[in-house]
Amino acid sequence: MPKVDTARFIADLQALRKIGEFKTGVHRPTYTPEDMESRRWLMTRMEEVGLESELDGIGNVIGRHKGPGQKLLVGSHIETQNEAGWLDGALGVLGGVALARAGLPVDVVAFADEEGHYGGFIGSRSFIGQLEEEEIDRLANRYHGKPLRQALKEAGLEGRPRIRMEPGRHKGFLEMHIEQGTQLESADLRIGVVTGIVAIRQYRLTFTGMQDHAGGTTMEERRDAGLTAVRLLAEIDRHFPLVRGPRSTWTTGRISLDPGAASIIPGRCEVLFQLRDVDSAVIARMEDCLRALVQESNRREKCPCVLEPVALSTPALCDPEMQQALADAAEALAPGAWQRMPSGAGHDAQYLSRVMPAAMLFVPSIGGISHHWAEDTKEEDLALGVEVLAEGAARYLAR
Amino acid sequence: MPKVDTARFIADLQALRKIGEFKTGVHRPTYTPEDMESRRWLMTRMEEVGLESELDGIGNVIGRHKGPGQKLLVGSHIETQNEAGWLDGALGVLGGVALARAGLPVDVVAFADEEGHYGGFIGSRSFIGQLEEEEIDRLANRYHGKPLRQALKEAGLEGRPRIRMEPGRHKGFLEMHIEQGTQLESADLRIGVVTGIVAIRQYRLTFTGMQDHAGGTTMEERRDAGLTAVRLLAEIDRHFPLVRGPRSTWTTGRISLDPGAASIIPGRCEVLFQLRDVDSAVIARMEDCLRALVQESNRREKCPCVLEPVALSTPALCDPEMQQALADAAEALAPGAWQRMPSGAGHDAQYLSRVMPAAMLFVPSIGGISHHWAEDTKEEDLALGVEVLAEGAARYLAR
Repeated sequence: MPKVDTARFIADLQALRKIGEFKTGVHRPTYTPEDMESRRWLMTRMEEVGLESELDGIGNVIGRHKGPGQKLLVGSHIETQNEAGWLDGALGVLGGVALARAGLPVDVVAFADEEGHYGGFIGSRSFIGQLEEEEIDRLANRYHGKPLRQALKEAGLEGRPRIRMEPGRHKGFLEMHIEQGTQLESADLRIGVVTGIVAIRQYRLTFTGMQDHAGGTTMEERRDAGLTAVRLLAEIDRHFPLVRGPRSTWTTGRISLDPGAASIIPGRCEVLFQLRDVDSAVIARMEDCLRALVQESNRREKCPCVLEPVALSTPALCDPEMQQALADAAEALAPGAWQRMPSGAGHDAQYLSRVMPAAMLFVPSIGGISHHWAEDTKEEDLALGVEVLAEGAARYLAR
Repeated sequence: MPKVDTARFIADLQALRKIGEFKTGVHRPTYTPEDMESRRWLMTRMEEVGLESELDGIGNVIGRHKGPGQKLLVGSHIETQNEAGWLDGALGVLGGVALARAGLPVDVVAFADEEGHYGGFIGSRSFIGQLEEEEIDRLANRYHGKPLRQALKEAGLEGRPRIRMEPGRHKGFLEMHIEQGTQLESADLRIGVVTGIVAIRQYRLTFTGMQDHAGGTTMEERRDAGLTAVRLLAEIDRHFPLVRGPRSTWTTGRISLDPGAASIIPGRCEVLFQLRDVDSAVIARMEDCLRALVQESNRREKCPCVLEPVALSTPALCDPEMQQALADAAEALAPGAWQRMPSGAGHDAQYLSRVMPAAMLFVPSIGGISHHWAEDTKEEDLALGVEVLAEGAARYLAR
């Protein structure tokens, strides 16, 4: 059983927390000075545990094990959402460092911009060879619009080569992360062995009506785009429970009425709606239902609705052998206090799973809080998490 | 029959349109340099037709007839919504100037800020003595937050007295306005004699849930404030048709989900909802229904809803004698081409009706467009409108 220095692991997490500190969380958006400082800090930690560290042209930091034989790739990301939590991806990256310190044959990686300040998983996609230069030319910051090229230049990354994975070097990819939900906490469990990462189908629904004065236009004359949207969303609420799977989710994150004033009938309404499930067949069933409800809305209503897919990911299943190694490790170290569960959120592991066996381990999130500075996990759960990660890695490497 | 110079009336409207011109409309928000220029321009027009003009401490412009006897007060407002139409209130003010020019014993008034950049009908309320200094201290611009006191100072109005109506001076108040709807146009009519101004009940509905990650939180665990709002709005859509009156309207102008991101379950939702009707009993019935639906939502749902009245006006009925004078004038000048109708929008007349007989005349709006630079009315309808206004005024004065 590998001997992990859990105190040192937690001390590393606390040290990284100081970079971009915000209340009890951190603010380290991708390519900001704080983010770059954290990447340099990470390289020093990697060198300390005997890894050869490198920062590449997209901001990925990789620490290579110097010994012979196949390695396990272990990591996640260290930049954060705005004013977000101290653990999130940092947990998986420093978990990798802890495994290297414990003598396991691992490469450690921090992928850039998992949080999507500039794009969708550009760090992990670059690493697996699925990010073209043309896409880098095109991307810009989603909050303030700075072009990705400019951000890379300002961060001193311009001109650096992008590191690609070496085929055959890795036996698999392992990512530890906070749960970002309350499944473990409410079942009083301490470890989640992830079965797969859900597919996310993100849609934009646009309703077109006629903007009019709310006083001068009778109910019969109106073409109220917001009302048509409310009716469709109520139908989704009625019909989705009958086509869902046991762990499906569907969410309306935004409803924008245009112009959005008290006395004006909305001439336009935009809705952001998404589905998630780990099972492709369930996703297809829910999508069919959504399309049928939009069609029915267009048959009945005066305001046409257009359904546009904005982002469509596919489910990423975790490797059964890696899952089993993690499950055995969890049962050995925390008997009865773990479960298998899907990941409702996207992670770098979903891209790595395209090119090598991949698996994930969850630790509980207190109150399920994530992407918020109040995010936290009990120290004993952090320690148990890295021990199960190490034990699972050792068991999988030994197979 | 008074002889109105309709060509001069339209030339005045066109001249005023040049001040703050925006596309084919105008942009003259209250107390801006353009608005103040238009007020000074109006005072010159008033003097030309023999009125004694004055600008008061809230920005009201009043032109007093110099002859003896009771007058009719005629007017509306000349500031505009942002990037709005050229007619709107300007029509009623220059209609008053046209009546004075035709020799009718009228005072003409342009009330400040009918469009509510700073408050609710502060000009007409000041005139009838229902605006306290304390409210002026408190008000600020609803778009950019500038305090009303500062705006008054910058407009050179600070220190000027506010003009109050002289009891007994006026036999009534008459306001011509565009319809801001399509009732006249679709019935192929040219004049509307207003029966009353609807009451507007404006509410804020606030739903409180729990903000969570859309991937990590199961449907069963969620407290989705947006979903509770959608369900309540769908119930309103279902039940209101059964309690409404023949001309009731109800409108959801804004739905704000907080934080409004694709992958975050809204923790809070705010809805702006309003009712309008000219009949107090109908308003009461609709309001009872709304309260019952909110109560039922709070019985069934996980996310509590709070219903707050934001602005509650009462219906303002037009004076029957003045209505009859306008109806007789309309029938004389446009036989069969007019109707009686309620006003769905609020107007200064609703405040004047509290202290004297008041009535309103509508001309058609092309396509019902209003509060938009494309707002327009056929020139022949403008000319007919001012002629009916003059004839109705003369008939009422002669009673």
